[in-house]
Amino acid sequence: MKLHHVGIAVTDLEQAARPYLRLGYRLEAQDTVESQGVQVYMLSSGEDRLELLYATRPDSAIAKFIEKRGPGLHHLAFATRDIRAELAKLAAEGAPLIDSSPRPGFGGHWVAFVHPKWSGGVLVELVEAEK
Amino acid sequence: MKLHHVGIAVTDLEQAARPYLRLGYRLEAQDTVESQGVQVYMLSSGEDRLELLYATRPDSAIAKFIEKRGPGLHHLAFATRDIRAELAKLAAEGAPLIDSSPRPGFGGHWVAFVHPKWSGGVLVELVEAEK
Repeated sequence: MKLHHVGIAVTDLEQAARPYLRLGYRLEAQDTVESQGVQVYMLSSGEDRLELLYATRPDSAIAKFIEKRGPGLHHLAFATRDIRAELAKLAAEGAPLIDSSPRPGFGGHWVAFVHPKWSGGVLVELVEAEK
Repeated sequence: MKLHHVGIAVTDLEQAARPYLRLGYRLEAQDTVESQGVQVYMLSSGEDRLELLYATRPDSAIAKFIEKRGPGLHHLAFATRDIRAELAKLAAEGAPLIDSSPRPGFGGHWVAFVHPKWSGGVLVELVEAEK
């Protein structure tokens, strides 16, 4: 698997995007994922992506993360071509899945999260995507 | 610029590497950076890299980070071909540089850090590298 994006919790999308635009990233897409209470800017360098996550509701996971730890790095997302097969393998190995079946994420991709205790405190997301 | 690697603070290199090896990453290189008090595993997917950082001294920045926030995502590093020119531009724009001149980092690369207040709580590293 390859890195699909790095997720970053932000308190202001425009302001948070600025340093990465300065480094040469561009706004590839934007979306709102109502089910997760987030508004998303997907920034791209052409080879890699940074996903800026802004909470649209106080009960959103991003709002809770920011309340506890402040804005900053939130998760790593890896691209897989078959998320159901990957989740089944991880479940069989006893990995602590947050989502045992995929749910719709940014841009209509199927996504699923693995608990950070699996990966040394790093929240891991699987994304069904070519890359 | 493109992402060079994602830095991750860990309490055990072997254990922290395991989930990423499981996802298809391989150990590309390892190194100890005495000046920073860290031992490093650089993992690669062939397209992107994860840098696992283990503190070798209690006064290392990684030890302090883990004491405060626990192990997990630590920084984003971007590749630049001319780190001195890039630092000069950032300084002229008023970016809060932690390192106003480059210092040796992993694998002998020149590196410099920008304060997280520049980038919404994300510690940013510049690495002089092709990619």
